[in-house]
Amino acid sequence: MLEADLLIKNGTLLTMDGRASIIENGFVAVTGDIISHVGADHGSPMKAKKVIDAKGGIILPGLINGHTHAAMTLFRGLADDLPLMEWLNNYIFPVESRMDQDFVYTGTLLACAEMILSGTTTFCDMYLFEDEVAKAAKQAGMRCLAGEVLYDFPSPNYGPIEKGLEYTESLISKWRGDPLISIAVEPHSVYTCSADLLVKANSLALKHGAPLVIHIAETASEVQEVIRRFGKRPFAYLESLNILGPHLIADHCVHLDDAEIARIAGNGVKVIHNPESNMKLASGISPVPKLLAQGITVGLGTDGCASNNNLDLFEEMDTAAKLQKVGNMDPTVLDALTTLRMVTTSGARALGLEKLIGSLEVGKKADIIVLDTNRPHLTPLYNPYSHLVYAARGNDVTHSVIDGRLVLEERNLLTLELKDVLRRANDKAENVLNWLSKSDTY
Amino acid sequence: MLEADLLIKNGTLLTMDGRASIIENGFVAVTGDIISHVGADHGSPMKAKKVIDAKGGIILPGLINGHTHAAMTLFRGLADDLPLMEWLNNYIFPVESRMDQDFVYTGTLLACAEMILSGTTTFCDMYLFEDEVAKAAKQAGMRCLAGEVLYDFPSPNYGPIEKGLEYTESLISKWRGDPLISIAVEPHSVYTCSADLLVKANSLALKHGAPLVIHIAETASEVQEVIRRFGKRPFAYLESLNILGPHLIADHCVHLDDAEIARIAGNGVKVIHNPESNMKLASGISPVPKLLAQGITVGLGTDGCASNNNLDLFEEMDTAAKLQKVGNMDPTVLDALTTLRMVTTSGARALGLEKLIGSLEVGKKADIIVLDTNRPHLTPLYNPYSHLVYAARGNDVTHSVIDGRLVLEERNLLTLELKDVLRRANDKAENVLNWLSKSDTY
Repeated sequence: MLEADLLIKNGTLLTMDGRASIIENGFVAVTGDIISHVGADHGSPMKAKKVIDAKGGIILPGLINGHTHAAMTLFRGLADDLPLMEWLNNYIFPVESRMDQDFVYTGTLLACAEMILSGTTTFCDMYLFEDEVAKAAKQAGMRCLAGEVLYDFPSPNYGPIEKGLEYTESLISKWRGDPLISIAVEPHSVYTCSADLLVKANSLALKHGAPLVIHIAETASEVQEVIRRFGKRPFAYLESLNILGPHLIADHCVHLDDAEIARIAGNGVKVIHNPESNMKLASGISPVPKLLAQGITVGLGTDGCASNNNLDLFEEMDTAAKLQKVGNMDPTVLDALTTLRMVTTSGARALGLEKLIGSLEVGKKADIIVLDTNRPHLTPLYNPYSHLVYAARGNDVTHSVIDGRLVLEERNLLTLELKDVLRRANDKAENVLNWLSKSDTY
Repeated sequence: MLEADLLIKNGTLLTMDGRASIIENGFVAVTGDIISHVGADHGSPMKAKKVIDAKGGIILPGLINGHTHAAMTLFRGLADDLPLMEWLNNYIFPVESRMDQDFVYTGTLLACAEMILSGTTTFCDMYLFEDEVAKAAKQAGMRCLAGEVLYDFPSPNYGPIEKGLEYTESLISKWRGDPLISIAVEPHSVYTCSADLLVKANSLALKHGAPLVIHIAETASEVQEVIRRFGKRPFAYLESLNILGPHLIADHCVHLDDAEIARIAGNGVKVIHNPESNMKLASGISPVPKLLAQGITVGLGTDGCASNNNLDLFEEMDTAAKLQKVGNMDPTVLDALTTLRMVTTSGARALGLEKLIGSLEVGKKADIIVLDTNRPHLTPLYNPYSHLVYAARGNDVTHSVIDGRLVLEERNLLTLELKDVLRRANDKAENVLNWLSKSDTY
């Protein structure tokens, strides 16, 4: 008889394996933190300490948010519809200069609550005070690739940049071996980091086998500035510093020429696409079909809540697929299954986590979500991939398991006191308004 | 003492009046089907037969879906990511040729359930068997501007086109004076309707003071075909038939030149923008900021579920605003308040219903929704307009009142048996699959 710690049954199971197998009346069994069985339920006896009935809904791998700044939930709706520099200089920078550990911890808890409630089980983060991000993710029971943002100017967290590299290395040591948290080295961008910093950050990443994460080719003006300063487009510049490689995770990649796309493909660089942020900030449309055609791994990210303004990967998938269709004037590009891969298998590969997560296969970590499809906007159900990308919303998620642990049950968060998280977040928002009222630039 | 039939209190009240007044700790009182008081709650005694506590959430006018084909919910996810003609010829047309009254009635009930659950209180519909649409909307308690689709070829409903105009006139007679239902005359498009049909349809609309609804300038190939056949772009062609006027509701309007925009503005034609459908079908990006700059009234529609694939106007607003920003490479265009107007005041004006609905003002019909903002993805709340457009989802709606009647309470549908609606819809989906399996073109 099949025995397990946790059994999720009675659903349409999307394995997201190489053949994109769909198992009707499927089940997934979890032993410890590992998926121990996946199959169709033919009525054979199964025993588990905990059984979750998917009630005919969809069972799929937990979603992967490839790029966010979790704590920026506390800036959600603070300022919209503004030119980028006005938004940064008058709102974001004045507040960030006053932030502290508790602010980032609180904002990340809020983000984790939102992400779990909308089906995300893993996120890659870049921000200040990242030890707090890791702690909050750990408390929420989420998987997180965290990394302190590094740039040439002093940081409210670590001070001068030499300390930033030390801080990153201390994070790597502190969280080594953690089942949920891993650490990346994260220089902000080629226009805010000196060549020396970029090279040192890359060496640190290679030394520890950690990913290197960077914002790159996000706006046309960034590309122009990089050409003006270094005589090369961003990826050629990184290549001249010997930084391109499969450990590099390149966020945004909106403005690329064909030579850069060839460089990305040839060096195994991973790309994270952030369509809603790129739209809201009017950055542009990333050439995703061209990237995919070159075999490049492309994940999907929400970016931070100040430029989105939520962390819902179901909405992000919907927008990603539709934006590429209109952007390329071709309704066949970025179909539903390809889009869903961006937040599952491809998302995992982009973060270097493909051996652990991204599909429901025996031996992988148990990161699993369940959607209720017995709802008007998900009825009828001809094609589960279509529903997940084009019709579902984050709140259709009823259950979430991360690393074998049930963190969401019938939409109740089991790892966080939601009322307390919301109250603390609202207190921090009061601080933000106070800081801005005292800011010269507000 | 203030007395009313229904009182909604304890929320941030967005009136959407001309000044876009926001009333903190606001209330709205309803007597019969009419808004009788709107104001701030200062603790004065108020008495009502029914009191709804918004619990600090947002109270706003019910949303208006300016263009949909409600019964196409039954095609949701049936076929996606296909070239337009393959999608129409192999899936939509074979099924539509076999449809009957009960199919449309059932699909519309499903749509109404979805719309009420996502905050929509009024919709403008174009489809076959529109008497069934009107009946289903009436049963659901929704406000509906319904109109039978007219074209040169025989209809599965009315047969030859002469009968189509008669059928439309019979609908006008049947539903005259109904508090919820009104009827429009709806020729499908300039490429599927002869000049004779367009002129007759327009005369019928003018005779009864009804709106005239048409799909127009949706795709580049449509515009090219119209130029080829009539030697004019679509709006010049309509002008030559003397059809342009404030009674005309023009759906899509993606491909327009400046002369057409001037014609639309000069004749008071109303426009309904359908961004998600235009993206998914790769039709293009409507020049909405240009239209607004010319003072043109622009509402927002989801289009049918076969090309969206849901009816959630919150998602549609989010996409509309972001698409224009990236489409114009300007983050300041289509700000949150302007976008919200497209589904409230401007949406009402587009449908000729501005005296009845669109804002929370004394004397208007009581179409009101309440959103719960005590949720992670709506925390903190700096700006309610921003949240509604960029962060909220349809399921954040907790209550809905239409024409003074409570139709949704704590997310429970009061006018429809949801289980029964879903069961009936799933039965119809079985029919669809059977029809397609017997179709030559499937």
